[in-house]
Amino acid sequence: MATRIFITGGTFDKEYNEITGKLFFKGTHMREILELGRARIDINIRTLMMIDSLDMTNDDRQLILDNCKQAEEDLLASGNLEKTIVLTGAMIPFKFGSSDGLFNLGAALGFVQSLPQGVYIAMHGRCFDHDKVQKNKKTGVFEEI
Amino acid sequence: MATRIFITGGTFDKEYNEITGKLFFKGTHMREILELGRARIDINIRTLMMIDSLDMTNDDRQLILDNCKQAEEDLLASGNLEKTIVLTGAMIPFKFGSSDGLFNLGAALGFVQSLPQGVYIAMHGRCFDHDKVQKNKKTGVFEEI
Amino acid sequence: MATRIFITGGTFDKEYNEITGKLFFKGTHMREILELGRARIDINIRTLMMIDSLDMTNDDRQLILDNCKQAEEDLLASGNLEKTIVLTGAMIPFKFGSSDGLFNLGAALGFVQSLPQGVYIAMHGRCFDHDKVQKNKKTGVFEEI
Amino acid sequence: MATRIFITGGTFDKEYNEITGKLFFKGTHMREILELGRARIDINIRTLMMIDSLDMTNDDRQLILDNCKQAEEDLLASGNLEKTIVLTGAMIPFKFGSSDGLFNLGAALGFVQSLPQGVYIAMHGRCFDHDKVQKNKKTGVFEEI
Repeated sequence: MATRIFITGGTFDKEYNEITGKLFFKGTHMREILELGRARIDINIRTLMMIDSLDMTNDDRQLILDNCKQAEEDLLASGNLEKTIVLTGAMIPFKFGSSDGLFNLGAALGFVQSLPQGVYIAMHGRCFDHDKVQKNKKTGVFEEI
Repeated sequence: MATRIFITGGTFDKEYNEITGKLFFKGTHMREILELGRARIDINIRTLMMIDSLDMTNDDRQLILDNCKQAEEDLLASGNLEKTIVLTGAMIPFKFGSSDGLFNLGAALGFVQSLPQGVYIAMHGRCFDHDKVQKNKKTGVFEEI
Repeated sequence: MATRIFITGGTFDKEYNEITGKLFFKGTHMREILELGRARIDINIRTLMMIDSLDMTNDDRQLILDNCKQAEEDLLASGNLEKTIVLTGAMIPFKFGSSDGLFNLGAALGFVQSLPQGVYIAMHGRCFDHDKVQKNKKTGVFEEI
Repeated sequence: MATRIFITGGTFDKEYNEITGKLFFKGTHMREILELGRARIDINIRTLMMIDSLDMTNDDRQLILDNCKQAEEDLLASGNLEKTIVLTGAMIPFKFGSSDGLFNLGAALGFVQSLPQGVYIAMHGRCFDHDKVQKNKKTGVFEEI
């Protein structure tokens, strides 16, 4: 069972620009993260965009959806989206050393290989149905609704 | 669904003794790891032993089995072991900063919440049936058999 | 010989705000850095401001100068500024794990305890006279002039 | 003024062997440490040995002394050892992420460029005369005698 990872940037991939003193995106750290985790699964990585998730538009979301649809992995039958899709993220950029991203990616890979078809959000070591979760914007915590 | 984590020490919890220059065990870093991962699941942690897995005896293994049996979590019916049990470990101690342990724990928590009852080994982002895997002692890689 | 450390924030102390996704200042990490370095010297820490050095005004600089003048440490005689003052900074925030700040602070403490009175800049393992150095704003490197 | 760094291994360069679960030496991390510190000084690195300092013999010490004598850097005149020599070390291996080694190396470079000729020990942000310091083997702290 192959797993495809779509990269959108986000907190995961933010880096510190030494010249401007601001955060910016250069490229994804996904290979580095997978190597740190000694991952040995059949993974295809594709970068769709490198943006802060706060800046994500509906066009961006449509692009992600289109790519999920076109992915060959686990495309079983009809025109429906018969795949297991797990979205995850990070509260702290990977490059900051003490990031939760490594843990979240591990959990997302565990869930995506085990759960029935559907769209899920993996955060805090838990897995939420995509339509039963919201991010508490004051605390940053993902909560069931 | 509560999850119980049994601690046995292992590579995960090794620390560097500044006086002797050797590795040793002081206590588990599991709380610290879960906090780093922002875990918000119902977890009970119990330390069974603090030893190098290379020093693990059959008595130690029996102790782990007994504790798995007695755990209230997911004990469904008969006298059989009707639980989902996922064993994991680390190639590099957590305190070394660049440990795969954070990734492995994330994956193990993903698998343990999703898979049917059974005993599994989670390493390299994959999940193996407990009786279909062996550790290649030359490369340190877990391989399907 | 006591050493006083004045904190102004800067790259050293920037942190990642998990809610807004921006960098911000909360407090100084100087104690943590000194403990990591196992420093055992007589040090007084005083926080003067917590700002990005790019935002530093002449009023801020005057405040730093006033504090240098008033510090009891190494105030030898007349009204002149008879002290050894070493300014340092970081290219990467300490909280990012792979910061040069730990190295720079070590070097600054080495220079400040050894050099004759004067005002210096310690970066890149080197020490520059304060009036013979400039920061190359394209490369971020401090260069002799 | 060029600086020569002699590598002897020590706590600085210990690594974790994933197969045996023991600490071992593979090579020096000095270039990596200097790059992390953004060092831009004229440095020559030479590896003399890769051993635990607890295993150091008088022959090893003689080898270090011979190399100090032969180094061209700062060899001013007669047959005497007219150089500034600063010894340093680490309480925690660099590869463990939270090492004091980065701080100690910074301090050692600060001292070696500023102090008059002599042999010194840099630890804890301080510099000791080589014949006025001992390591407290219970606490691991270097103390003046």
